[in-house]
Amino acid sequence: MIVELLVIGNEILIGKTQDTNSNYMAKRITKYGHKIRRIIAVGDELEEISNALREIIDRKPDMIIICGGLGPTFDDMTLQGVAQALNTELELNQHAYDSIKRRYEAAFKQGILKLDGMTKEREKMAYLPKGSTPLPNQRGTAPGVKIIENEVLIFCLPGVPMEMKSMFKIMVLPILKEKRGKFMEKSFIFTGIGESHIAPYVTEVEEKYPELWIKTHPRLGEYGAEIEVSITAFNVENAEELADIAIEEIKKVVISLKGKIKAN
Amino acid sequence: MIVELLVIGNEILIGKTQDTNSNYMAKRITKYGHKIRRIIAVGDELEEISNALREIIDRKPDMIIICGGLGPTFDDMTLQGVAQALNTELELNQHAYDSIKRRYEAAFKQGILKLDGMTKEREKMAYLPKGSTPLPNQRGTAPGVKIIENEVLIFCLPGVPMEMKSMFKIMVLPILKEKRGKFMEKSFIFTGIGESHIAPYVTEVEEKYPELWIKTHPRLGEYGAEIEVSITAFNVENAEELADIAIEEIKKVVISLKGKIKAN
Repeated sequence: MIVELLVIGNEILIGKTQDTNSNYMAKRITKYGHKIRRIIAVGDELEEISNALREIIDRKPDMIIICGGLGPTFDDMTLQGVAQALNTELELNQHAYDSIKRRYEAAFKQGILKLDGMTKEREKMAYLPKGSTPLPNQRGTAPGVKIIENEVLIFCLPGVPMEMKSMFKIMVLPILKEKRGKFMEKSFIFTGIGESHIAPYVTEVEEKYPELWIKTHPRLGEYGAEIEVSITAFNVENAEELADIAIEEIKKVVISLKGKIKAN
Repeated sequence: MIVELLVIGNEILIGKTQDTNSNYMAKRITKYGHKIRRIIAVGDELEEISNALREIIDRKPDMIIICGGLGPTFDDMTLQGVAQALNTELELNQHAYDSIKRRYEAAFKQGILKLDGMTKEREKMAYLPKGSTPLPNQRGTAPGVKIIENEVLIFCLPGVPMEMKSMFKIMVLPILKEKRGKFMEKSFIFTGIGESHIAPYVTEVEEKYPELWIKTHPRLGEYGAEIEVSITAFNVENAEELADIAIEEIKKVVISLKGKIKAN
């Protein structure tokens, strides 16, 4: 599948919060052989959310994961943005309402929360874009959302990392596994020669194995630094074998140029 | 200024690398009163880079900072993507060429690099989109790029964090300071009451001070957790005083609801 991520929150744009949610998801989406095409972060602004989502839908990925902005406060406007992007409206989802109500009743009875009953703000979280399926939130109150638009599967997950991870594992991961593709990555590190020195040889190997994507990552700059050679492939049957051969060829060049292969 | 960031690299999309560059830049751009509208990450693919950049330019920000993909290898195709987005071509920039050449000569003489002289791959880094000004790279070899398109100021910075930070400080920060706006953020943390409990009161305060943006961040989920109230404003003259008043009003509510203000 082709996947795009849309991360929502002013705190990310002002640099107050390092977005770690998209990295968490990216690792797992890739692991099951799906390709993330773009990761986009926008603020808590209705038009921004709605425009960004519409643009993503127009690019026709198989899956979109939206993260953040599902809470009870006025600044949480993800679902409103989604509804606007899909030219639909928010409507009370009875299933979501009941589960939110049960959550708050239980928390009140246990003495965790001081306010009993449903309020306008708590109800707000039960208003989902028409056609949505609410997703249970095991670690918080705001339900997630699953909705299909033009054959694009859209998930809305909470932004609190603990809640996101729990919902991702339960609701998204099974689909990633079911529609599993094949992703391969192998890498090694060398020292003693520069990135530009090895570059023409890497290009030669790359041209021999067009199924592979070979990338060199200098660390701490090129001078005296290590260089990582990373080989990746999506949905290539014999990717491991090809990568092993390519790595051996590049290692030979490194050694012939008097570079050193770093032990694993 | 309105700023957008475009981060380039497959390693980010596959989750191998956590992008920390955009957070580094976001903190500093915000500090000087400029507003980041979007942060976009795309892979090392020519069409993706070119399309994403064209879309950003169409949104007419004042500044675009592109990060990553300036190196000597074939997978570094940022400048080609920029040229394509601007409907122009890459051309050899003599100034960039000379500085790259000097860098390699010095590194060879010092014994840091084993290969002397210019090669096709080293020359590649001197091919900049027509109309570019090369930016010196104090910590590596690939020069950065400054170019103006339709009154949008575009920077291309290296992706290696050490190189990016150095170039950001020297080339971007002075412009952020010169065109400085005003950003304010104040926050406090409370415990003991839930986000949905405080929500209607926060909305009331927000409505009294429309210049302020008040956001509540639950941490570790709503149950038993802390809630941070964060107040931000861009370019509001008396933002600090307003924020202090708003914070006092919200703190009073917290206390009246039997919540606790966390000591700083």
